Amino acid sequence: MSTRPLDHIGVVVASIAASRPLFERMSGSPGSPVEELPHQGVNVAFFGQVELIEPRDADSGVSRFLEKRGPGLHHVAWRVPDLAAELRRLEAEGYELIDREPRPGAGGHRVAFLHPRSTGGILVELVEDAS
Amino acid sequence: MSTRPLDHIGVVVASIAASRPLFERMSGSPGSPVEELPHQGVNVAFFGQVELIEPRDADSGVSRFLEKRGPGLHHVAWRVPDLAAELRRLEAEGYELIDREPRPGAGGHRVAFLHPRSTGGILVELVEDAS
Repeated sequence: MSTRPLDHIGVVVASIAASRPLFERMSGSPGSPVEELPHQGVNVAFFGQVELIEPRDADSGVSRFLEKRGPGLHHVAWRVPDLAAELRRLEAEGYELIDREPRPGAGGHRVAFLHPRSTGGILVELVEDAS
Repeated sequence: MSTRPLDHIGVVVASIAASRPLFERMSGSPGSPVEELPHQGVNVAFFGQVELIEPRDADSGVSRFLEKRGPGLHHVAWRVPDLAAELRRLEAEGYELIDREPRPGAGGHRVAFLHPRSTGGILVELVEDAS
């Protein structure tokens, strides 16, 4: 068993622009430019290992999260070497996948989400190691 | 500005023992032994950079969190070099501190929490670098 690096944690905010000073202060990082992910209905920006996520439209899951729970911690992402193979293993072990195949995520990485129902109430993202 | 390392993220669970297989699978880490923190009313164990937190008694804040929101992401912890000095700076900048002075946390580290009211709804922990 080898420890997987924690890739990042996702934090939902109403506005990346409004949250930028706080997260720059907390992370000590100037933060990345905003990346638009229209297919997921969100924009994101990274402050060290923290990904800020803002909704682009009222229909996105993130928009509903914000309405229901307010801003806050949204998901945790681990890095894995071969995502497609890992998804097949997880499915065989009975984990419920949101994405059965890797799909494009932030920064051009291949990513997939697991359903919180099978991960103790926590939304888990797996990010394929680019190297 | 230099990027602060993310020390860990805290995840509240009803039972560390029951959650151990899942978090071992996700983190690829066998997980640490359980550490008892009776003064904070919790037990904790680490799986890589994820800290699992279970309540020891019904009065703890973590117990109320679990009752109200269910298991899930609880706090994010950054590492800082001189915690007492950083707390003074944050207070001067108007941040609301839960701990005005460093106190003992998991693993014998000096830690302090900031109030979610002044950190965008997110509970932030600062952990003093042991080195």
